Order: sequence, then C-alpha cells, then structure tokens
Amino acid sequence: MTFAATVLTLYPEMFPGPLGHSIAGRGLSDGRWSLDTVQIRDFATDRHRTVDGTPAGGGAGMVLRADILAAACDSVGYDRPMLAMTPRGTPLTQARVRELAGGPGVSVLCGRFEGFDERLFEGRPIEPVSIGDYILSGGEMGALVLLDACIRLLPGVMGAPSSGDDESFETGLLEYPQYTRPVEWEGRTIPEVLRSGDHAKISAWRKRQAEIDTRSRRPDLWERHEGARVQSPSGARREKEREP
Amino acid sequence: MTFAATVLTLYPEMFPGPLGHSIAGRGLSDGRWSLDTVQIRDFATDRHRTVDGTPAGGGAGMVLRADILAAACDSVGYDRPMLAMTPRGTPLTQARVRELAGGPGVSVLCGRFEGFDERLFEGRPIEPVSIGDYILSGGEMGALVLLDACIRLLPGVMGAPSSGDDESFETGLLEYPQYTRPVEWEGRTIPEVLRSGDHAKISAWRKRQAEIDTRSRRPDLWERHEGARVQSPSGARREKEREP
Repeated sequence: MTFAATVLTLYPEMFPGPLGHSIAGRGLSDGRWSLDTVQIRDFATDRHRTVDGTPAGGGAGMVLRADILAAACDSVGYDRPMLAMTPRGTPLTQARVRELAGGPGVSVLCGRFEGFDERLFEGRPIEPVSIGDYILSGGEMGALVLLDACIRLLPGVMGAPSSGDDESFETGLLEYPQYTRPVEWEGRTIPEVLRSGDHAKISAWRKRQAEIDTRSRRPDLWERHEGARVQSPSGARREKEREP
Repeated sequence: MTFAATVLTLYPEMFPGPLGHSIAGRGLSDGRWSLDTVQIRDFATDRHRTVDGTPAGGGAGMVLRADILAAACDSVGYDRPMLAMTPRGTPLTQARVRELAGGPGVSVLCGRFEGFDERLFEGRPIEPVSIGDYILSGGEMGALVLLDACIRLLPGVMGAPSSGDDESFETGLLEYPQYTRPVEWEGRTIPEVLRSGDHAKISAWRKRQAEIDTRSRRPDLWERHEGARVQSPSGARREKEREP
C-alpha cells in the first residue's frame, strides 16, 4: 500500500525538496509513498489571490484566513488525518509518528506569517501539531520533518527492518551511546564491555547507559518514563519478570 | 554582517533545498546569510570512502566513525558553534536559536544511520542538539529546521521587524489565538473584545488566552513558566508592578 502524503502550502516548490534524496527519495520512486501538493492560493476568491488579513485586535504580521484555508482543506478531504503545523499545536512524538505511518497517509497544512485564524480548528477536523519549541518561517520545514519521520518507518524504506527498535524514544529513553572502529582513537578506547562478546553483559550495560544519559540530559523524559513504570501494572509486571 | 552557515553532511545536494525559497531564499540572495556544505565522505581514508562501521557490541545499523567525522569538523574549525543533530542531544529552544542568530554563524553536523561514535563528543567541542522527540532518517532535516529558525531572526530577513515578539515561546507561553476577516465565518464570529478598539482590554484578553491555552495544551511549558515567575525576583517585581 502506498502511503499518501498531501501538503497544503503557499510554497509547493519546496516539495519534495530534501525528501527527494536518500531513503525517502528512493521510497518515493519505488512507490512506497506518494506526494501531492495543493497551492493554498488557488482557493483565494479575489483577483489579488489574497489568503491572509491583518490580525483582529491589531498587531504585527498577517493571519491566514479560515474561509480560504478551509476551502483548500475541504478539497483534499478528511479521510486521512489532517495536521496543521503550528507552534500552538500538540508536540509531535515518536508514538504519533508510528500511528500515522501505520495509516493510509497524512495531509499537512503549512502556516506562514502569524498563523491560522483560530476558527479553522473549530470548524474543521484539523489537528494542530508542533515539531518543537522554536519558531520557523513557516510550516513547510515542519511538514518535511513530519513526513521524513513517517516515511522511514514504511515497509521497505529502511535498509534493515530491525533498525529502529532500540532507538531514542522508542523505549521512552534516549538511545545508549554507540561506538565503532577504530578501537582506539586519540587515546580513547571503546568501552571494554562492548568488546567482551558477552551479549547479556552488553545488553545490561546499554540499558544502564540509556538510563544514566536520559536522567542527566533529559530529566523530563526520565520523569515520564519512571511515572509510566510505576503507574502501569503491565510495566510493573515486566519489571518483575526481569528479576533474576 | 553575514551569518555564515556550514553544513557537514553525506547529502550536500539537500541544501539549500527549502531554504532557497521564501524569506530564507531572499536572505541568501541578499547576502544576509551564506551557506557552505562539506561532504563528510571526502574525509574517508580508504578507497571505498567508508565513513561508518558496525556498532561495537553488536546491533543493527551503522555508526559514523569518530576519526573521520572529527577530520571533517576540524576542516571547518570551531570559531563558530558546531552543533550535531542527534536525538540524544539537548532539545533546541527559541532561546538557543536567538543566541545562535546573534552570533557569527553556525556549523551543523548531520548524522545518519545509528548516529555518531560517542568519542566524537569527548574529543571535540561539538554540541549535540535535538529538534524533537522523534526519529528522522538523518540530521539534514534537523539542520534545515535549525537554520530556518536562525535565519528568520537575522536583521533584514523578516518583513516587519516587530513581527515575532509576541510569538509562541518568546514569552515562555504559547501565542494567543489569532483571528482575521471575515468577521463572521460559518456562524463563528471574531471574539467581541478584539473588535472593541480598546487596546488595554485586548492586551489583557490575549495574555489571559495565552495562559489558558498554555495551561491546557502544554502543562510542561506552563509549569516551567510558573516556576520561573515564582523563583525569579525580577519576575516577581514585574508581576507586582502590573497590579492595579
């Protein structure tokens, strides 16, 4: 099945852009996913093709009009999830990415300027999503990030299908540190345990490192991880089963 | 002064990509920022131009070699901050973006596969940075996001220089909801207060909405915001001054 991506934007020429290269690009030529763009401006109704207006109540910048954006979104339909990239949205997580990648595809609405008229989200089933706590010049970069995250999970896109299970966030923790040859570099050697060949010891060391790094670098993730382990009965059961 | 961006990547053809359009693209042609790419593979030392190796201790995927990546980074130098895009990194914030945009430029190292040999971060002054809690096919999308966030803050790049002060995260809160014409759309009207012309009332309403939305959508941001207000004496003073 082809994962169908539709991007609604004022800059269709930005797509596929970087998604036309590397594994996403190969996936596109192999038909693992498809890409359509919709020019929002085509839904303007005046001869200047206006899509925005000044903010009600005053302020700098321009706001994207609900009526015109709704017409653009309606033209695509809501069979697939419709996400709008905005800093006011729900933070994107790997769990949500995995859900989306398992579905038929996604439509992504890209904002510009001061964002969307809020009524758009009241009047249409559009999910506001944020890729992080910083401001971009528009939603297009967010759409690229969202699509890239989904595409790499599609069957046949990544080289090794087992690649990914241990990665950061998949376990609720950061990934453990990685090492490769040379064994010694500028006096720094690969940790002894990783060269031991003892798989149980290696696995225990990696788990411990992932915990140490998550706790020190991402106390927010660590807290959530610990909370989930304490609160979830199945998590607690798994913990017990692991005991010797 | 030109903001100098250097991207170290296995896919230099991805750049400037979307940064060649819209305001970032105009900024590039106007000389507000400059872009160089460095092909990491040029620093490989064997005739197959190998940049990676299997993970020490086993596991799927390939790990980028510290020796080869260090050589690529050394060729650029460390006069400007050198950031490596990795899910194990410090989350990117608008405050860090603002700092970077105020400096001479940035070098961005893009990972692929299972990431970097950890010794790279011990041996070189490279700052690991993450754009969010999801996994991408490589650091290139992260580099585009980071650069876009910086570029829009450079003098002369955004149309209206006042645009941006009220935006999400700049105040530690999400931005207030925006509205524009038409006044009525599908039976939904712009909130009365925004049409009142009373600037004090509008400002109070927006502040209140930003607080309500942040509290309900982003309890994590809200907690940090409240914590900062309670702990900082200057914050407390500001709060007092605001009282009637």
